[in-house]
Amino acid sequence: MADVGQLFAAIVGDAYVSAGDAVSDDYAHDEALTATWQRPAAVVRPADTAEVARVLAAANERGIPVTARGSGTGLSGACTPHADGIVVSFERMAAICEIDTQNHVAVVQPGVTLDQLDAATREHDLVYPVFPGEYSASLGGNVATNAGGMRAVKYGVTRHQVLGIEAVLANGEIVRSGGKFVKATTGYDLTQLITGSEGTLALVTEATLRLYPRLEHSATVLAPFAVLDEVTHAVPRIVASGVAPMVLEYIDVMTMASITASAGLDLGIPQAVKDAALAYLVVVLEERTQDRLDESVGELGALLGELGAIDVYVLPAHSGQQLISAREKSFWVAKAAGANDIIDMVVPRAQISEYVTKVGELAQLYESLVVGCGHAGDGNVHLAVFQPDSEKRYKLLRGIFEAGMALGGAISGEHGLGTEKRRYFEELEDPAKIALMRRIKVAFDPNGILNPGTIFEPNHQPTNHEVTA
Amino acid sequence: MADVGQLFAAIVGDAYVSAGDAVSDDYAHDEALTATWQRPAAVVRPADTAEVARVLAAANERGIPVTARGSGTGLSGACTPHADGIVVSFERMAAICEIDTQNHVAVVQPGVTLDQLDAATREHDLVYPVFPGEYSASLGGNVATNAGGMRAVKYGVTRHQVLGIEAVLANGEIVRSGGKFVKATTGYDLTQLITGSEGTLALVTEATLRLYPRLEHSATVLAPFAVLDEVTHAVPRIVASGVAPMVLEYIDVMTMASITASAGLDLGIPQAVKDAALAYLVVVLEERTQDRLDESVGELGALLGELGAIDVYVLPAHSGQQLISAREKSFWVAKAAGANDIIDMVVPRAQISEYVTKVGELAQLYESLVVGCGHAGDGNVHLAVFQPDSEKRYKLLRGIFEAGMALGGAISGEHGLGTEKRRYFEELEDPAKIALMRRIKVAFDPNGILNPGTIFEPNHQPTNHEVTA
Repeated sequence: MADVGQLFAAIVGDAYVSAGDAVSDDYAHDEALTATWQRPAAVVRPADTAEVARVLAAANERGIPVTARGSGTGLSGACTPHADGIVVSFERMAAICEIDTQNHVAVVQPGVTLDQLDAATREHDLVYPVFPGEYSASLGGNVATNAGGMRAVKYGVTRHQVLGIEAVLANGEIVRSGGKFVKATTGYDLTQLITGSEGTLALVTEATLRLYPRLEHSATVLAPFAVLDEVTHAVPRIVASGVAPMVLEYIDVMTMASITASAGLDLGIPQAVKDAALAYLVVVLEERTQDRLDESVGELGALLGELGAIDVYVLPAHSGQQLISAREKSFWVAKAAGANDIIDMVVPRAQISEYVTKVGELAQLYESLVVGCGHAGDGNVHLAVFQPDSEKRYKLLRGIFEAGMALGGAISGEHGLGTEKRRYFEELEDPAKIALMRRIKVAFDPNGILNPGTIFEPNHQPTNHEVTA
Repeated sequence: MADVGQLFAAIVGDAYVSAGDAVSDDYAHDEALTATWQRPAAVVRPADTAEVARVLAAANERGIPVTARGSGTGLSGACTPHADGIVVSFERMAAICEIDTQNHVAVVQPGVTLDQLDAATREHDLVYPVFPGEYSASLGGNVATNAGGMRAVKYGVTRHQVLGIEAVLANGEIVRSGGKFVKATTGYDLTQLITGSEGTLALVTEATLRLYPRLEHSATVLAPFAVLDEVTHAVPRIVASGVAPMVLEYIDVMTMASITASAGLDLGIPQAVKDAALAYLVVVLEERTQDRLDESVGELGALLGELGAIDVYVLPAHSGQQLISAREKSFWVAKAAGANDIIDMVVPRAQISEYVTKVGELAQLYESLVVGCGHAGDGNVHLAVFQPDSEKRYKLLRGIFEAGMALGGAISGEHGLGTEKRRYFEELEDPAKIALMRRIKVAFDPNGILNPGTIFEPNHQPTNHEVTA
C-alpha cells in the first residue's frame, strides 16, 4: 500500500495522494445500490493532464488497476475501485477553461459539475442541455457514462454534445480528438468511442461541449391518463405536431404519489382525477418568446385532450419546477423506500407500454414490487425493484432485460453497465459483439488496467492469440 | 480473375457477378477528381445480409480486398477498387424496410438513395434531414462517410441520425448495434465507430435512421456583405438569437457568380450591391406555421442589418430553391471549370475568415487559384483548387491543412479521407492517434481486407507484434 502511495506521490506530490487507512470511505463506492464497497490502495489527485499521463504510464508499467472518479454519483458501480488499485480523482481538475460564445462551446476539465457549468453558461444566455437529474455530477462522469436525462427527446444525450476530447491512454499517451465543430470525417471517431466507455478505454482530461441558446420561456403541462398505453400513443403525436417538447416524461401512479409526498408537493389535482389516473404524462415546452409559448401550450392542451387525457394542467412555474425536481430525485425516493436495485433499460418508445406490461408480469412471477417512471419521449424507463432475495432478483432482472431486448431495447439507457449490470450483458448480448468490444478494449488498454470489471468481467480478458487470430 | 468471379458466383448466383472484362468502368471509380481509375477483379451484388456475410467470409479467408459501393458519388476515392479485389455493390439491397411513424425512424438497406428516402418520408410529414447535396447518393455511402451537408447547423450530420446498424464484419460475423432509440450506454458504441469509417471496419447492411417532423414553411434570405469577416461574426449572433437557422452558408463572390451563371439564375441583386459584396450569407429558416416564419424572417432581416449586411433579400420560394440547388451543385461547376482538386476542411466556425485568409496567402504563394463557399454555421469550408502541377498542389494542400489544423480544424468535414487525402492525414496527424486507429482497424479486420488504402496506407498495416505490444 505504502509503495503504491509513494510511487504516485512522486508524480503528483505527497499532499495529493492518500494511501492505506488514510483513504476515505467516500472513494470506496459510487451510488449503485448493489455494489460492494471497496477501498483502493491509494487515491491520486493529479493537477493536470501531464500528471495524469505520468500516473497512467506508471500504473500501466506495473499493471495497477485505475478507476477514474468525478463526483461519484454513478448508479452502476463503474466507480468501484480495486483493493490493489488506485482511484484517479479529478477534484483538482475542475476548471471551466473557456465559454466560447463565438463557436458556442464550453471547454471543461473533467471535475467540473453540471451546476458549475450551468451557472457559467447562464451568464451568456447559453445552456448545456443535458440534465441527468443530479447537478453535482461531474462532466467527466457524464462523458464516461454518456449521461442522458429528461431533455434527450429534444437535445439528445451527452454524446451529442461532446464535440471533442483530450484523453490519456493507458500507456500515458495523450490524444486529442474532434474540436469546436459538429462535423468531421477524418479517421475513426475516437471522441464517440471513448464517450460512454465507462473509464475502460481512456481517461478524459478535457471535453469540448456544445452549447445552445438558452430559451427563457418554458411551461410544464401535466396530463393524467387512464392507462399507460394512451401515454405511449400520445408521444409520437406530440413530437410530430412540431411543438418540439424539451421533456416528455411518464410517471406511474405509485411513483407520482411517492415523489410528490416526498417533496411535499400539491399539484392541485382533484381526488376524482387521481383515482382515475394510472399514468401521468409531463411535458415541458420552451420557446424564445412568451407569445410562442402560450400558442404552443394551447396547441398541446388541445392535442392532449384529443389523445385521451383525463384533464390537462398547465402548472404554475414554481410547481412545474418542483415536479421536475421531484421527478429527478426519484432515485433517492426509491433508495429511501428501500429499493434493492434500479433498472434504466431503453426500448423503442412505442414499445414502452408493452415493456411495462412484461415487467408487471415478471414482477408478479417473482413476487417483487417494481415501480417506475420514464423518459416517454425516448423510451428510457426507470424502474425501482423491491426484492431483497438476490437470486430471485437476478432472475427478475434477467427476465426484464430479455423482454426489453426482445422488443429491440438495450440494457442501459444512461447509467451504464458498470460492475452491476455486466453479468446480464455478458449473458444476454451477442457473443460476437462482446468479442469485438473486447478486441477494441485491448487496442486501447492491452494490460487491462483501466477500470477492470466494468462492462466486462476481468477474467474474460482475451489473450493476445485471441486478439490477433 | 475468373476464379474470383466463380468463387463469389457460387454465393450470390452467376447473374449477380461480373468479372474481368465484363466489369463496367462505372465501378472503377467514385467522383474524386484526383483518383486513378481501377477496375476490380469482380463486382458482386449480394441479395441480402446473409449473402454479404458469406461473401466477406470467403474474401477474408483468401485475403481478397473488398470495396463496398453504394451510388459511387463519394469525393475522396474511398470507393476505388483494387485490381485483385472485389466491389460489393449494394444495388440489390435498396429497400426501405420500414418507415416507423411511432418511433420516428426509417430502417433502410444501404442501397437506398436520399431521393427515395425523401419521397417515402414525405408521405408521413416526416423528414430525414441530412442533405449533402447529391440526392442520388446512397444511405450506405452516407453512413460510411458520415455525410454532412447544409442542414448540419440545425440537425447535425449523418452520425447524429444513425441510431442503429446491422453490419457484417470482415470474418462474416453479423452484428447489430443500437436500435430505435437515441439513448444507450450498453458497451462501446459500435454504431458511432462504424459510422464514418469509410468501409474499412465493417459493411453496413441496414441502418436505423432518425426522422423529424417535416416543417413545411421555409424561407431563404440572402445577405451580401462587404467582407467575409462580417459574415463569420454574424453567424454566432444569428444562432444565439434563437431563430434556429436550418442553413447558414457563405458563398464567395466568384463562386456566387459561377453557380448563378451556371444555373441561369438571376436573383435580382443590383449591380452596385454586387460590386460592393465580397461574400454572401444565405440563411434558410423553417417553421411550422407561416406566421412564425414571417416573424422570424423579420427578426433575421433586422439582425442582418445590424450586423452590417449591405442589403437583405428574402428570395421568392422558387429562386430560394434554385439558389440552394445551385450551391449544392458547386462541385460540378468547379469540376466543369477544370478544378484539379477539392478540399472540405472543417475549422471552428469563428475561425473561418482567418482560415480563408491563410488559404488566400497560400494560393498566392503557390500561384494557384482557390475559390469556395462553405457551411458558415458549422465551419465546413469547401474549396476548389486550380493548380495542374501535382507537386505544387501537394504543397498548397499540405499548407492549407496545416493552417486549418493549427486553427483547431480537421482535414475533412464530410467527404472523408478516402485514398486521396490519406497522405496528408498520415503526415500531419498525431502518430499516437493514428497508431491507435490502426489498432482499432486490426480489432475489426485483422487481415486488412476491408477497403485497404482508405484512411491508412496499406503498407502501414501494423504487425501482430505492434498490435499487442
